[in-house]
Amino acid sequence: MDVKILLNEKDIPKQWYNLAADLPNPVQPPLGPGGKPIGPEMLAPVFPMNIIEQEVSTQRWIDIPKEVLEILYQWRPAPLRRATRLEKYLKTPAKIFYKDESTSPPGSHKPNTAVPQAYYNKVAGIKKITTETGAGQWGSALAYACNQFGLECKVYMVRISFDQKPFRKIMMQVWGANCVASPSNQTNFGRKILKEMPNTPGSLGIAISEAIEEAVSDKAGETRYSLGSVLNHVMLHQTIIGLEAKKQLQMVGIKKPDIVIGCAGGGSNFAGLSFPFVQDKINGANIEIIPVEPKACPSMTRGEFAYDHGDTACMTPLLAMYTLGHAFMPEPIHAGGLRYHGMAPLVCQAIVEGLVKPRAYHQLKCYESAMIWAKTEGFICAPETSHAIAATIDEALKAKEEGKEKVILFSYSGHGLMDLSGYDAYLTGKLKDYELPDADLKKSTAILKDLPKPSTKKTGKW
Amino acid sequence: MDVKILLNEKDIPKQWYNLAADLPNPVQPPLGPGGKPIGPEMLAPVFPMNIIEQEVSTQRWIDIPKEVLEILYQWRPAPLRRATRLEKYLKTPAKIFYKDESTSPPGSHKPNTAVPQAYYNKVAGIKKITTETGAGQWGSALAYACNQFGLECKVYMVRISFDQKPFRKIMMQVWGANCVASPSNQTNFGRKILKEMPNTPGSLGIAISEAIEEAVSDKAGETRYSLGSVLNHVMLHQTIIGLEAKKQLQMVGIKKPDIVIGCAGGGSNFAGLSFPFVQDKINGANIEIIPVEPKACPSMTRGEFAYDHGDTACMTPLLAMYTLGHAFMPEPIHAGGLRYHGMAPLVCQAIVEGLVKPRAYHQLKCYESAMIWAKTEGFICAPETSHAIAATIDEALKAKEEGKEKVILFSYSGHGLMDLSGYDAYLTGKLKDYELPDADLKKSTAILKDLPKPSTKKTGKW
Repeated sequence: MDVKILLNEKDIPKQWYNLAADLPNPVQPPLGPGGKPIGPEMLAPVFPMNIIEQEVSTQRWIDIPKEVLEILYQWRPAPLRRATRLEKYLKTPAKIFYKDESTSPPGSHKPNTAVPQAYYNKVAGIKKITTETGAGQWGSALAYACNQFGLECKVYMVRISFDQKPFRKIMMQVWGANCVASPSNQTNFGRKILKEMPNTPGSLGIAISEAIEEAVSDKAGETRYSLGSVLNHVMLHQTIIGLEAKKQLQMVGIKKPDIVIGCAGGGSNFAGLSFPFVQDKINGANIEIIPVEPKACPSMTRGEFAYDHGDTACMTPLLAMYTLGHAFMPEPIHAGGLRYHGMAPLVCQAIVEGLVKPRAYHQLKCYESAMIWAKTEGFICAPETSHAIAATIDEALKAKEEGKEKVILFSYSGHGLMDLSGYDAYLTGKLKDYELPDADLKKSTAILKDLPKPSTKKTGKW
Repeated sequence: MDVKILLNEKDIPKQWYNLAADLPNPVQPPLGPGGKPIGPEMLAPVFPMNIIEQEVSTQRWIDIPKEVLEILYQWRPAPLRRATRLEKYLKTPAKIFYKDESTSPPGSHKPNTAVPQAYYNKVAGIKKITTETGAGQWGSALAYACNQFGLECKVYMVRISFDQKPFRKIMMQVWGANCVASPSNQTNFGRKILKEMPNTPGSLGIAISEAIEEAVSDKAGETRYSLGSVLNHVMLHQTIIGLEAKKQLQMVGIKKPDIVIGCAGGGSNFAGLSFPFVQDKINGANIEIIPVEPKACPSMTRGEFAYDHGDTACMTPLLAMYTLGHAFMPEPIHAGGLRYHGMAPLVCQAIVEGLVKPRAYHQLKCYESAMIWAKTEGFICAPETSHAIAATIDEALKAKEEGKEKVILFSYSGHGLMDLSGYDAYLTGKLKDYELPDADLKKSTAILKDLPKPSTKKTGKW
């Protein structure tokens, strides 16, 4: 068997899979002010209507526009790869496959949704898209996508990253985006914060607020905002990962994986790989599906299932999700993409149903796993991806104990070439593990007690 | 036609192509002290004998060991890609194909030779390999390869890069290599330099001297030195690039390219893509073959064809090559891999014969080309690669003028994700072009006048 299982362009999936069509109990609707479900029209100043339609759709299969596919072909179908060297190192009977999302121009899975989002905005007559970015993965993906469609792109980048990690910013600039440090003096909210706290390092919450403010205050109505994870349409766009992987496993005679693993910050990489397999599980297949998060930011494993805001500044509607509370500030672990207080509502509903079983790891164990990976498979993974690798190694060793030839599939969400400082910190012994104290957790989730409560009804038998 | 033309593992070339078998006049032998041709045994303290045998071989096809192929499979066969978006942007009738060498773990073509070199050293019972590196492309490739075979790797990295570009160094450390700043206090030569010039930024010449000194002074005889370009065996190992590309063009019905382009510093990337096509040209095919170098370091276009040392400190034998003189110090352009005073003897002999026609570009034009590339094809290329892209764009525009549907093939030697500071310098207007003044050229080549002269005999009709 080749270590790379390659799909031709003509075999790329032509439709995305929408898990909302198959969940035993539907995802609970977002709530607006006063706890009332919000209608699509309330989101119209923020997102174009074609994206809002996808956000609320319960149609099972949604066509991928030809114009989107033509850009995805630049790196898709992405390779499915067999980690034979890791298998040998672990002496495991398990077969380890990984879906390699590191081959896109920005180096992660993020453009899978950035490209369709840019496309739908373009079709809706929008001229400019605003967004926020932390370490820069999402900002660079949207910059790339906007450039392909000739749209303006404005990225509010958390100031501390803007100053300390200049390389992602340069990538955005190469693709023609305007990347500014947040808080900036370009929005009312940014100016207010700068006045109150001139030396603030910024935060994702502040950056989101600035990006939304710029979008909704464009008098010409030609600017919209874009989000890189959490929302239903983002999960939808990412399902191309799992749909491709399913075809590729079939190419080598594997009907189904036994275990599916992905790292989860906002949830889009995990959802992208796993949702097509969650569908199979709903239909009776026996598959263990594991989203992996850091112990320093344990929304799924220790958070509450509650209605909460998606951002720190409470500008977004309330979403039904596992959350640590919207004011939660995680410790500065290196997996920046996993430092989010909440989790995608679709992923959370799958957890409520028992369809997926989350797990949390400490970052030292994750870096150890990343080092084993680099020394066996040769590639250097992103710190987020190392969480999926840590779980994969654990499952492969368990298969060895049990003497079972399990098929493990995980998502290789991105390469770590822009994140080498984390490896340096690990190699020089500067990294620490952070276990969130119970008292801190209690404090950060106290914010939820006056908000509406979502139903935890579960009908499945998983 | 798919934009990616993919080859299965089973179709990977099983032999390397050795141009030395087909050149009308042979490459002229390296000369030792006193101007006498040196025998293989004189190189034995530096390289293992199996590599020396390849270095002097005139056998046309040389088997690639199974153990080498098994590691190359991690990223090879590499994709051949069609640059349809660039074609459209240029409105050219030319078909532009590029062989994508950016998909290896270190991100360039360098491991194509690092892996076999590590293998042959391992087979010869060597325990440790030393080398030098400038910006770190080669050092990281050798670190990766040594790690795969369980060999120790020691990299002398030019101090200014060691201090200013820490990321390649971290890559090497992830793969278990010992990377030290050169000059170091670990060799006699390094200590001497440090005493004389404690604040020196270092140079490739010094680093080579340190690496060779460590190799030859290992009393146990278990250490050897490795070079990442210039020598015949390195060109040989890189021909897998062109051999794969040839098969891939045939897969889409193209019998031969009209134009083949590669950037050339020491020559290995250019040779790797082009030598299989140079063979076709020797056998009568009409192909234009173009190595591209920077105007700031114009060894092929303005240097002399002469016997010269491969290093600044005159530790290597004399090689027959186009050279600017071994003491030449190029201006600090961003394409660090193209800042070499000489050129691979095999490439130079092909120039003498008229088989390949070198060309030089200024760096601003190259960065302009890299920006066009990033905005059309989406990927961010290495500064070295941008030289090949600049020539490709020129040739595609010429084909447009002529109204000819030419097939252009170029080598995409590596990605630029570790080189974003060069893009930043370009975007902020800080980059300059350097034209080497005639007087400086005359001064730097004066060093050659007392050295033996190689023959410039030419029998071909190209």
